[in-house]
Amino acid sequence: MSALPLIVFDVNETLLDLQTMEPTFERIFGDKQDMRLWFANLILYSAALTVAGCYVPFTDIGAAVMKMLADTQGIKINDADKQELKEKFSTMPPCREVSAALRKLRDAGFRLFTLTDNLLEVQTRQLEHGGIVDLFERRFSADGVKHHKPSRQAYAYVERELGVGPSQLCLIACHTWDTLGAVAAGWEAALIKRVGNDILGVGPQPQIVGGDLNDVADQLIARHKRRA
Amino acid sequence: MSALPLIVFDVNETLLDLQTMEPTFERIFGDKQDMRLWFANLILYSAALTVAGCYVPFTDIGAAVMKMLADTQGIKINDADKQELKEKFSTMPPCREVSAALRKLRDAGFRLFTLTDNLLEVQTRQLEHGGIVDLFERRFSADGVKHHKPSRQAYAYVERELGVGPSQLCLIACHTWDTLGAVAAGWEAALIKRVGNDILGVGPQPQIVGGDLNDVADQLIARHKRRA
Repeated sequence: MSALPLIVFDVNETLLDLQTMEPTFERIFGDKQDMRLWFANLILYSAALTVAGCYVPFTDIGAAVMKMLADTQGIKINDADKQELKEKFSTMPPCREVSAALRKLRDAGFRLFTLTDNLLEVQTRQLEHGGIVDLFERRFSADGVKHHKPSRQAYAYVERELGVGPSQLCLIACHTWDTLGAVAAGWEAALIKRVGNDILGVGPQPQIVGGDLNDVADQLIARHKRRA
Repeated sequence: MSALPLIVFDVNETLLDLQTMEPTFERIFGDKQDMRLWFANLILYSAALTVAGCYVPFTDIGAAVMKMLADTQGIKINDADKQELKEKFSTMPPCREVSAALRKLRDAGFRLFTLTDNLLEVQTRQLEHGGIVDLFERRFSADGVKHHKPSRQAYAYVERELGVGPSQLCLIACHTWDTLGAVAAGWEAALIKRVGNDILGVGPQPQIVGGDLNDVADQLIARHKRRA
């Protein structure tokens, strides 16, 4: 029987419900859609800084993009707003199917890990608050290698730390920018099509696409049972 | 007298009025704000693919991101919509101060070039349609080196083609992701704060910031006259 791949999860939005940030954006910016614009710009600048060879911690980019977005609209973010945004981001609840789907994967014999651009301390607080921290054997932050996803270095960091080759790893994420990086690195990847996310018709494609983590878990279990 | 830097312009939004795309987005997506979300995701995926080591032409990413955005909202883009979006993007008019400001820079002795992620044929059509193509000595596309901005390779391509060092070049753009890449590459950079754009509080900062190209041109002329 061929060994099961080690499963590495993205955290923000993949496991935790990013939409819970919307009311705060609606209050500050007057439009909940600004949450999507902020998150897209956060990833844009994370990738732009990475491709330009500059490392800035993810939290600092997130705060700077928030200020930039407010400045472009002539909106002033005060200290209480900043505190609320930081607090909400650190305590997003898991998406409703996540906890049971993670247990299902574990019961099927998969070993579970995380890899996020968040600092390790932010991630730990998020997963502890969500009550799912114990389901992961180990948590990784791109901060450990100072290269954000989807750079080759971020995925290679996990390979090195776990002492395995790319073909032994599978990323699960709800962001196509993340799955394309993993597939380019030689990993298997599964995309969860959460609200506001979908596949992109160009670039490396994920091997599995599902509507939620439960769906993806079922497909992964079937795929690897068939292979065994 | 020290030589003047060679000035390299970004094209989309820096020279051409991206806001003219808004009515088409409002018609198709029901919200003109989706233009910003589309453009942010276009740059996000351009940088993500670049950092993951995959090259996809900018036009193809733009079309794929448009479809992705429509899919996330359950909107169907038909062939007429696609044609309209492509046509609008290829024929955006210059921002109103651009033509006179470019002439002012030329009259002050600066040599003008472009560097865009657009394919050369799209760029040429845009600048010809805008009536400003003749103001540039030469036009470059990141397609020539198969690495999109803000990767080091894109800026180095222009250095190589012009046979100059990074310190002899100055980028003018209205996007902070572009100026940070140029500054990281050792270029001088000027940011135009067009509507919807602003500086970012982290990463390499532009040496000049202005409200429009006329403002930036005056600052550049004063800066280099002082240095001479």
